[in-house]
Amino acid sequence: MRLLVVNPNISESVSRLIAEEARRAASPGTEITMVTAPYGVAYIETRFEAQIAAQAVAELVAERRHAHDAVVVAAFGDPGVPGLKEALDIPVVGMTEAALVSACLLGQRFSIVAISRRITAWYRECVAYNGLLGRLASIRSLRQPLASIGSVQADHARQLRELCLMAAEEDGADVVIVAGAPLAGLARALKGELPVPVVDGVSSAVCHAETLVRLDPGAARAGSFAPPPRKPHAGLSPTLAALLERGHG
Amino acid sequence: MRLLVVNPNISESVSRLIAEEARRAASPGTEITMVTAPYGVAYIETRFEAQIAAQAVAELVAERRHAHDAVVVAAFGDPGVPGLKEALDIPVVGMTEAALVSACLLGQRFSIVAISRRITAWYRECVAYNGLLGRLASIRSLRQPLASIGSVQADHARQLRELCLMAAEEDGADVVIVAGAPLAGLARALKGELPVPVVDGVSSAVCHAETLVRLDPGAARAGSFAPPPRKPHAGLSPTLAALLERGHG
Amino acid sequence: MRLLVVNPNISESVSRLIAEEARRAASPGTEITMVTAPYGVAYIETRFEAQIAAQAVAELVAERRHAHDAVVVAAFGDPGVPGLKEALDIPVVGMTEAALVSACLLGQRFSIVAISRRITAWYRECVAYNGLLGRLASIRSLRQPLASIGSVQADHARQLRELCLMAAEEDGADVVIVAGAPLAGLARALKGELPVPVVDGVSSAVCHAETLVRLDPGAARAGSFAPPPRKPHAGLSPTLAALLERGHG
Amino acid sequence: MRLLVVNPNISESVSRLIAEEARRAASPGTEITMVTAPYGVAYIETRFEAQIAAQAVAELVAERRHAHDAVVVAAFGDPGVPGLKEALDIPVVGMTEAALVSACLLGQRFSIVAISRRITAWYRECVAYNGLLGRLASIRSLRQPLASIGSVQADHARQLRELCLMAAEEDGADVVIVAGAPLAGLARALKGELPVPVVDGVSSAVCHAETLVRLDPGAARAGSFAPPPRKPHAGLSPTLAALLERGHG
Amino acid sequence: MRLLVVNPNISESVSRLIAEEARRAASPGTEITMVTAPYGVAYIETRFEAQIAAQAVAELVAERRHAHDAVVVAAFGDPGVPGLKEALDIPVVGMTEAALVSACLLGQRFSIVAISRRITAWYRECVAYNGLLGRLASIRSLRQPLASIGSVQADHARQLRELCLMAAEEDGADVVIVAGAPLAGLARALKGELPVPVVDGVSSAVCHAETLVRLDPGAARAGSFAPPPRKPHAGLSPTLAALLERGHG
Amino acid sequence: MRLLVVNPNISESVSRLIAEEARRAASPGTEITMVTAPYGVAYIETRFEAQIAAQAVAELVAERRHAHDAVVVAAFGDPGVPGLKEALDIPVVGMTEAALVSACLLGQRFSIVAISRRITAWYRECVAYNGLLGRLASIRSLRQPLASIGSVQADHARQLRELCLMAAEEDGADVVIVAGAPLAGLARALKGELPVPVVDGVSSAVCHAETLVRLDPGAARAGSFAPPPRKPHAGLSPTLAALLERGHG
Repeated sequence: MRLLVVNPNISESVSRLIAEEARRAASPGTEITMVTAPYGVAYIETRFEAQIAAQAVAELVAERRHAHDAVVVAAFGDPGVPGLKEALDIPVVGMTEAALVSACLLGQRFSIVAISRRITAWYRECVAYNGLLGRLASIRSLRQPLASIGSVQADHARQLRELCLMAAEEDGADVVIVAGAPLAGLARALKGELPVPVVDGVSSAVCHAETLVRLDPGAARAGSFAPPPRKPHAGLSPTLAALLERGHG
Repeated sequence: MRLLVVNPNISESVSRLIAEEARRAASPGTEITMVTAPYGVAYIETRFEAQIAAQAVAELVAERRHAHDAVVVAAFGDPGVPGLKEALDIPVVGMTEAALVSACLLGQRFSIVAISRRITAWYRECVAYNGLLGRLASIRSLRQPLASIGSVQADHARQLRELCLMAAEEDGADVVIVAGAPLAGLARALKGELPVPVVDGVSSAVCHAETLVRLDPGAARAGSFAPPPRKPHAGLSPTLAALLERGHG
Repeated sequence: MRLLVVNPNISESVSRLIAEEARRAASPGTEITMVTAPYGVAYIETRFEAQIAAQAVAELVAERRHAHDAVVVAAFGDPGVPGLKEALDIPVVGMTEAALVSACLLGQRFSIVAISRRITAWYRECVAYNGLLGRLASIRSLRQPLASIGSVQADHARQLRELCLMAAEEDGADVVIVAGAPLAGLARALKGELPVPVVDGVSSAVCHAETLVRLDPGAARAGSFAPPPRKPHAGLSPTLAALLERGHG
Repeated sequence: MRLLVVNPNISESVSRLIAEEARRAASPGTEITMVTAPYGVAYIETRFEAQIAAQAVAELVAERRHAHDAVVVAAFGDPGVPGLKEALDIPVVGMTEAALVSACLLGQRFSIVAISRRITAWYRECVAYNGLLGRLASIRSLRQPLASIGSVQADHARQLRELCLMAAEEDGADVVIVAGAPLAGLARALKGELPVPVVDGVSSAVCHAETLVRLDPGAARAGSFAPPPRKPHAGLSPTLAALLERGHG
Repeated sequence: MRLLVVNPNISESVSRLIAEEARRAASPGTEITMVTAPYGVAYIETRFEAQIAAQAVAELVAERRHAHDAVVVAAFGDPGVPGLKEALDIPVVGMTEAALVSACLLGQRFSIVAISRRITAWYRECVAYNGLLGRLASIRSLRQPLASIGSVQADHARQLRELCLMAAEEDGADVVIVAGAPLAGLARALKGELPVPVVDGVSSAVCHAETLVRLDPGAARAGSFAPPPRKPHAGLSPTLAALLERGHG
Repeated sequence: MRLLVVNPNISESVSRLIAEEARRAASPGTEITMVTAPYGVAYIETRFEAQIAAQAVAELVAERRHAHDAVVVAAFGDPGVPGLKEALDIPVVGMTEAALVSACLLGQRFSIVAISRRITAWYRECVAYNGLLGRLASIRSLRQPLASIGSVQADHARQLRELCLMAAEEDGADVVIVAGAPLAGLARALKGELPVPVVDGVSSAVCHAETLVRLDPGAARAGSFAPPPRKPHAGLSPTLAALLERGHG
């Protein structure tokens, strides 16, 4: 199985974290291709940055779709994921939805631990889009500015652990999700130290993508995830244009 | 007051409909600048097309933001609107949110009449994003393929009127929203013939944008609609880069 | 355009605040008629007081409806507004719904700052009636008894500002609504000092009432906001009786 | 136990139906006092009529409160009930909330059968106010104009029974509520003929009012159902004024 | 009227508290039969323990159903209640649903005070199952281990009172429910000392069970509370087998 | 990996269907142990039957827990699953939650196709318990009595296919779940014939159970899925008693 894993941000240091965790999580027969957005920002915290990233992801994935069995979009917030699910006929899994799904199988209510205060409003909207606000116990976050996006885990180790603990002890979380690609792999380090299960988005997304390929439930030719209907378009890159041309209609 | 009205689609025929309705709705002192997306599709029906359009809108608006007092994004579904509200320090009003708000002031529950079946799932998600699913009575739509996007109103006049009537008579709608820029202005024609108020997105958006400029409630420097925090970026157009550079941080 | 603005409370000092803010907000061509409830309480904090006020408003408005193009009910909680929307064929806008609608156009989640603790439960029910509980970040309020209802803004200036700040900084509010007619106009003073947009109910209601008159979406002859069906009645004032007689049936 | 039962409408024929059912339902030691609104309409179908009725009920009850242990407001929609619960220190039970509560104890989802189409929007809002929209299976109603409000049960017997059956068979109702005081007592006639439990509002309200008197849970001196705080008022009837004077503050 | 009251736990000391409160609450003509689960745990705090208790209750009740007019299941969380409502043709009332219903008639929002932290997640799910999460102000609980389940009220008197006060003063509760059979009767002691009404589950359940018997709304032969359809079964106790045999089919 | 798959019903013919599908779905290294409830009913349609099944599952699993890495409960409705997640320190996955999670990764809204009308109310409650009612498009079901539970797929092939089609075409489903263990494997047959992805509960549960074992997120020692606190118990089977003894406290 060939899995395309996309970092929607421009940070190569974060791509390395993602790729490492993806490979640790993947089944023996699964081959991981890691790609990084060629344009965009260092890490997404806002709706505006997510929208830019969505477009970068779309271009990246459109080019590589024939060579892969499934796509993982490795930024919390799942930039571009709903649209890609329409446009492609292979499974596309976002890191947020993957983590939420893992958490739902492990407990009734979950908390999310995030890397910045600003990011939390966007995360809350992502949980809402997934229809799971009723199971969200809390979102907690670091409050300091980040010195380096590639070393957040090391720089803030103690605080991240404490945020997880407070979620479990004060907020009623049955499960904690450590959110954001810069925290990829942190769950492995934390789980011995926390009294509740800890979920990582990258490994969840890799496993769930593999599952969807194995289940092979059929592609959408109707419903709201069928390919966009064919219609006049203009000015698009050849890759996106080709993607739209495959639509039914 | 200078209002920038953006058609996120490439259809000039629809831009004409939008501009006409915008000018009919605007106050005497309001000047309308109409612009059309330089790339994208003829009309948006899906999440994927909306995401492409969002990016086109962002570029268009970023270039013209200094010369205007407010922006109206004139496609149902409000592509790019949440992000633009963060990025700009002038009011940005989407056609959907504007129509929903007008409907809410006129009754308790509203229905939406749309131009295609496919578009309805996306509309429903837009209503959900606005937190108003509890007031949605129904979404009804045309079912036939559209011959020409610029003449939908004329081509399907009788059916559109019937869909509105059924919403009022069968679905419990207090108000009907005729949705989608290709239907801009239709509400004026329909209102004499319908037993409930009819709301148009373009005129609503123009009026509400004027209201926000008059209320002048202050720009966001905190909260989730403050400008994105300043951080490393790469590969963006000079316009978008400049917009991100103004962020706090 | 002739706008009837009703203070559902008996406080002339508050009527003056309302009228001043209404006139500041109105368009050049708009004429404001300010009236004060002839009976009732000094300010509404409870469901019971709101119900008394609703009746006073109904009588006041029924008498003056022919001379105006729209009605603004200028007490938070919108006493009598849903019923008046049925009974009249001109737009009726409540101060709460107007403020909520403005807030929704400015951000995703809003907080409300109120003048007393007791009032907050009623406000919460108003937000629920408007179907917007999902976008409510918090309600904060003064806790001290009010010395004089006409001078609340001056007497508690510092605290009101602090409540707004806490809503933005602690509760995740993108927008703050300063609620209650005694705070009419306060938003203008606060907006320079707060990091998020501040919304005032009176100016919002005036602008939205003007918008509804301009949009002219047609009156309800069906749906739940059509006039009450004609039927036997007894013991009503001639004004209310006349209003009910115009009902269809 | 002395129970005050109020018909918020002016129809003496309906008061007779209510009183008969109330007496059938009451415990041996319970004494029923039936009163009819001195002003208002023949039957409430709209928010505007409900507001007028609320005021009539408030006056009626305020005068008689010392002589009774509890109050039943016998019109669906519970006009004036939330306010009266604040103003009085004896239990006040509305016919809607009573029927909803009975239905909740008998099944998971309930349907409401009503006497007119127009009334259904208001009923839906009442269910929403009670926080029980999630358990509402459907609202069905007669569609014809009512010849006589006192003989609805007889005039439309077959149709009412069919509406109940359809709720059980098509809408997934575990329980059916026959709603509206003109249908008082109908549940007794129907229950042999229906495959699901049938709930009547008047008998439910009488029983639940008795229960609240027996439980004697203490009156509210805090929270949002404490008496309205004492404050300046003007122009009120001596009865209402006296009620407001007892408020704390 | 013969009421079967079941303690789903094995604690005889708690059964005594329940029986005393049930007899205090019952009408003159009502005869209470108190039974205690023959197997299970001392008190239920978890989903797993509730499931064991549900089965014990089912066996107990199945044996005694012919001799009673209604059943009260006297453990918060209502173990086995939904299933028993299907299986029996007499009313079955759980302590949680009974307390919730009483609280709903007394105010808009309620808090629950519980005997242990662990129990609160399960209580929250019970409120959700009853569709009343929107009216839940808070759940507060003791935090210490319980020395003796039969003397919780005495051992923690001051703290329980304080939790109730905090619910009223901090959480916006209009009503407080003291939850869990070990607190049966506590509401009587507390109500003089608290500023809001206090609700007890046992007395509520007894009164509401009496009401359902008096209302006699008819048994379910359709809908989701009809008896389970007859079908092959194996290995069940003769009592349960007999209960299943009466099903339609 | 050793997976224990439990059929909570007594039907060996259904156990065969489950085991076949489980083995088709399992990874090469996964070993499936299939067990069938020793007592209970032929297939669960009601809350009462589910509660009996829950207890049978608890006993079965408690005995075999040491020999397995995860448990799959293979009846729609997940009888006993929430309790088992507390009691065991290995992952427990229910067939419903597994199918819901798969569906959520494949589209925004899903429909459920079921084997009997009666079963649908219980399924709806299961979706509600999973917090996913907002994504449920519809539940459709066969209406005829079932001749043989082991041959439902063959006996009703055409109708099941049609129900799926109607969900996609009429109800707005992006994904269809064929629900109930008697339909295990049907999704494989249907997917070529349906225009939307089709999800099977058994294969989903097997894959997700494998994922949870691989993710190894840590067991709950706090939160509401920690083992039940240790406390007095009586009359339980040695197996259940041993399970409770391992609780913390």
